[in-house]
Amino acid sequence: MASTPSSDQTTASSSPMHDALVLRMDKAARTLLTSATAGEDIQAELQTMCLPITALWCRILRFDPAVPDWPDRDRYVVPSAAMLPLLAAMLRLTAPGAQELSPTLEYGQHPAVEIAAGPAGQGMAAAAGMALAEQQLANRYGRSLVNHRTWVLARDSDLATGVALETAQLASRFGLNRMAVLACPSPLADPADFSDSLARFHASGWSVRKVNAHDLGAIMNALQAVLRARKPTLLACIPANSPAQPDMPAEDELTGPWSPTARRGSSIRRSWLRRLAQHRARADFERDQMGRSRHTMREDWGRLWRQTMRSTPDGSSQQAAFAGLRSLALLRQDVSILAATSSTSSSRSANLPMPFGHAAQPCGIQEHGMAGMLNGMARHGGVLPCGVAGMMTIDRMRSALRMAALMRSKVLYLLTDDGLALSDNGGGWQPVEQLASLRAMPHLAVFRPACAEETFACWQTALNWPEGPAMLILCPHPPPHRTGRRSGHYGGPSHGGYLISCGQGLRHVTLMASGPEVAIATLAGQHLAEQGLNVAIVSIPCWEVFAQQPAAYRTAVLGTEGLRVGIEAASSFGWERWLGTDGIFVGMDDFGISAPANAVYERFGITAGAICQKVLARLLASGAQKGLSPSAPSPSRLEDLDMSLTITRL
Amino acid sequence: MASTPSSDQTTASSSPMHDALVLRMDKAARTLLTSATAGEDIQAELQTMCLPITALWCRILRFDPAVPDWPDRDRYVVPSAAMLPLLAAMLRLTAPGAQELSPTLEYGQHPAVEIAAGPAGQGMAAAAGMALAEQQLANRYGRSLVNHRTWVLARDSDLATGVALETAQLASRFGLNRMAVLACPSPLADPADFSDSLARFHASGWSVRKVNAHDLGAIMNALQAVLRARKPTLLACIPANSPAQPDMPAEDELTGPWSPTARRGSSIRRSWLRRLAQHRARADFERDQMGRSRHTMREDWGRLWRQTMRSTPDGSSQQAAFAGLRSLALLRQDVSILAATSSTSSSRSANLPMPFGHAAQPCGIQEHGMAGMLNGMARHGGVLPCGVAGMMTIDRMRSALRMAALMRSKVLYLLTDDGLALSDNGGGWQPVEQLASLRAMPHLAVFRPACAEETFACWQTALNWPEGPAMLILCPHPPPHRTGRRSGHYGGPSHGGYLISCGQGLRHVTLMASGPEVAIATLAGQHLAEQGLNVAIVSIPCWEVFAQQPAAYRTAVLGTEGLRVGIEAASSFGWERWLGTDGIFVGMDDFGISAPANAVYERFGITAGAICQKVLARLLASGAQKGLSPSAPSPSRLEDLDMSLTITRL
Repeated sequence: MASTPSSDQTTASSSPMHDALVLRMDKAARTLLTSATAGEDIQAELQTMCLPITALWCRILRFDPAVPDWPDRDRYVVPSAAMLPLLAAMLRLTAPGAQELSPTLEYGQHPAVEIAAGPAGQGMAAAAGMALAEQQLANRYGRSLVNHRTWVLARDSDLATGVALETAQLASRFGLNRMAVLACPSPLADPADFSDSLARFHASGWSVRKVNAHDLGAIMNALQAVLRARKPTLLACIPANSPAQPDMPAEDELTGPWSPTARRGSSIRRSWLRRLAQHRARADFERDQMGRSRHTMREDWGRLWRQTMRSTPDGSSQQAAFAGLRSLALLRQDVSILAATSSTSSSRSANLPMPFGHAAQPCGIQEHGMAGMLNGMARHGGVLPCGVAGMMTIDRMRSALRMAALMRSKVLYLLTDDGLALSDNGGGWQPVEQLASLRAMPHLAVFRPACAEETFACWQTALNWPEGPAMLILCPHPPPHRTGRRSGHYGGPSHGGYLISCGQGLRHVTLMASGPEVAIATLAGQHLAEQGLNVAIVSIPCWEVFAQQPAAYRTAVLGTEGLRVGIEAASSFGWERWLGTDGIFVGMDDFGISAPANAVYERFGITAGAICQKVLARLLASGAQKGLSPSAPSPSRLEDLDMSLTITRL
Repeated sequence: MASTPSSDQTTASSSPMHDALVLRMDKAARTLLTSATAGEDIQAELQTMCLPITALWCRILRFDPAVPDWPDRDRYVVPSAAMLPLLAAMLRLTAPGAQELSPTLEYGQHPAVEIAAGPAGQGMAAAAGMALAEQQLANRYGRSLVNHRTWVLARDSDLATGVALETAQLASRFGLNRMAVLACPSPLADPADFSDSLARFHASGWSVRKVNAHDLGAIMNALQAVLRARKPTLLACIPANSPAQPDMPAEDELTGPWSPTARRGSSIRRSWLRRLAQHRARADFERDQMGRSRHTMREDWGRLWRQTMRSTPDGSSQQAAFAGLRSLALLRQDVSILAATSSTSSSRSANLPMPFGHAAQPCGIQEHGMAGMLNGMARHGGVLPCGVAGMMTIDRMRSALRMAALMRSKVLYLLTDDGLALSDNGGGWQPVEQLASLRAMPHLAVFRPACAEETFACWQTALNWPEGPAMLILCPHPPPHRTGRRSGHYGGPSHGGYLISCGQGLRHVTLMASGPEVAIATLAGQHLAEQGLNVAIVSIPCWEVFAQQPAAYRTAVLGTEGLRVGIEAASSFGWERWLGTDGIFVGMDDFGISAPANAVYERFGITAGAICQKVLARLLASGAQKGLSPSAPSPSRLEDLDMSLTITRL
């Protein structure tokens, strides 16, 4: 094989012998495809794409059947489950021992299935994320270690969705010229739709080519052109004339090892292994690949945080989280940040400097494409993808976020501009149901820290969250006063929920809150304590982590008696989990309004005063039967009150 | 004014007098704009767009300041709050009495603000929906009654989002040549991004023109070309040279009535009123405008439903809902259906016949654009927009759905292919957290009917839901057995939740479910009743409607004693609302899997057998202290069991 690594993929010169191999394999693949149970239209698309994909696999793709997941392999992405039979056919023909693979292959069944099938367009975005990860790793380690491409077998529907068109813009902006998409028109759709898709990709800065899907020479020329392209490429494979029905190949052809193809891949991988063994950054590369950090990372990060905290002890959670991301990026070179314009709320421009320096790639307002790319970066490996975007844009990113959770990918999100404070633009920009909708998603951890100190603990817990993606929801305004732990505190934010403060003896009231509302709860607690009530203040920055704590811990934090009050500038949906059926929720039952922040909080009754009134009214109602008045009850009388305040919660 | 209605907008021939009016008004508008508190970039965009918008308002726009919401007005859509000062300036200059309008105008403050500001691109989609509604109403009533246009003052960010690009495709496919978008490049962004946007719109079948934003003659020519265009138009207003700073106009110029403009609008409206008065379909038109139906509608619809029910009494909720939509479209001509390809799950093609006949417009896989268009159709008035799409695509439509809820727009959704049954494509297609995420949204009503009979009641309730959008979540498979009301039933599906059946005396177990799981609950209930337990079966098709029932009704349905069990093939999030803290939830704690439907239900333990086991295990644990065995307890011994089964729920 070629000794210069960059030429691995450009040696695919055509020869009659090579062509014969491709055509034989194509014939065998078509036979395998006919056994796939697919609709007529899908079958037609599979047959159209068979020769181009076979040529790609035989002559171009960096793929070693023996080690299908080696790091410098080409990524071959199949966004739609309908197209997976073609991947199954390729694996069966090239990989010894893969003969038994089901034609309806699925994510998790073979390492060559790079992503789970998802909504149209998600695979395009994931592929762009892989190409971006490749670009970043190549910049870090050089082409001798990182020299692969990302190929996508797309359907026309993948090209026409909004997320695909956002991805097209981002791929062009980032110069992802090692990304190539192969697609064919759907036989059922209007051909003009497909042409329009090609034109839109061209308009987005892509190299767009049409090729006769049944002409091997033209296909090889087109694939060679892809290898030389300076832009991301879309290769439209047009079924110009109907292919001849393949003769049934002999049994040995179907099960043969297709050794030339396998030998090519194996040879490329072994020469890569030799280069890796001699590479001076080998240890770093392998650590990145495993997603590990240096063993001193935790300690170093803590030191940097403490420095930050000393300089801005009363900063907002957003400031603190950004500082944490900056220092994380200093300590871990695999951190890769994509930031949407919405995260720099003061401006709408994509070209303003990001608060994380050069480590962040600006993604403009293409948040959905960005979120899909983060998934691909995580699946690629070697990078730790972090997305930064405005809290309200999470609605747009939801399909992509779900794919991250479904694939249990380690993707970190920093969502900025949470809270009611940024209300100049009307109610449309104030989150209401977003928190509940995120907490309902399996495997996702949602953190909503109250202050800079909690942000540190949440950042660390999010980084170590083992199940899938994690997000920090951040407020740009510092809390009006310190909310840190006081007398009677118990546990800490890394447990998901903890006691900030609690008096001695039976609790009358437990105020629970998250994020900016913890400061309000603390203030309300002070007022109520002045009334002689025994008040506990609980911060629950992360429901998912708190729910995983032992029951005894949760009980100690939430208490077993007294009135429970939940405070969050959001929908009440789901809060019964912590409040029981008798608790009070103080939050938003409607969309926000345009007004200064304080006025919005007042409109929804999320103020210390309103909370105290609600609590006292409820206690008065409970205590009325005993003739007690809650207005300034003396501590001694409160002992009498206790029984009436105790609400049985089995 | 012109007597032929279609020439209303084409009489804007240029003359020195007209030009002088526009230029004077432009000068005044610029002065008003300088008082708007906007960033430098926004201010620059406002100034760039000032002359084109002023020319539009003075010479083209069908707008009567005296009656700004008359039905045949041009729609002038401002998607971004940042651009509203220009609308405020136009209103202040043209409308007597509008001088006190705040420059930071908002939705709800003036009828000329057609939509609430939302995420980038939503306004584009809403405008396309308005243009589609205009097209449909013009087809129904003719150009003498419906002859207006939709104008959008967009920003570059509105053009670059995925939803805008999906909208561009749909607007072109539907031939919305009465939609025109005016936009200018952002001074902070790369000019190439704006050019790419223009190219993408051109590739989507739009007419794209560039015009010097400071050349009135060129602007008037371009606007005239828009009036003649056979495609949707994008007019890019380029600030070719810096405008001269306007002299401060005299006070009377700022507050003057700009009578020529106002007179033009008033004259157009009055001639329209004369045509309406003589129109033979006047009553229909006015009823459509008020969103009312004929007073016999309810009865007629019921009759058609009963016919359907007789022919397919055991059909799926999806079949029933489609039949209901078909008959609704027969009875109400204002019903307008947009259907995504995902709603016809057997095929991916946009060109297949829809199950609703010619009444449905096919929207392919551009679900997000479609959802945004539904909002615009609702805001336009005269049509009742119904969207049909696959359940899983709701994640993509979420930003648009939220705008409908925020504007309390009457938009109906039919979401198909709910449930675990369609699992061939892997876990990504099985809803898990979607139900919770939708129930958390204010003003939205989510219906999940169990059977054809419930579907009828839910359809009617959804149609009358007063707060905003409503959706029916539908399963394509008929329930395995009848789930209708039996002995002890109470209430009905139109109450949101009701008792399907209940024995006499103290309840031991209340099984609650929705949708396809009601049949499973019914079966489990039969098994448990055979064990001598007193079981109540509750169907909760709509939480929002059920929560609005009187507390006494809810208590009668849910019962006050016994074990509560929630059964839903979805996330448990939020179910504590009905289960309390001691209930059992049977559902999904993870994403779905690929397997035949029955296997998926078994994997998650959502079977009658597994539910019975869980219930008996819990009752055994509760009863253990009393030495009771729940295996086949005799009815007499159950009386003893009662106390231990009674779980206090204050």
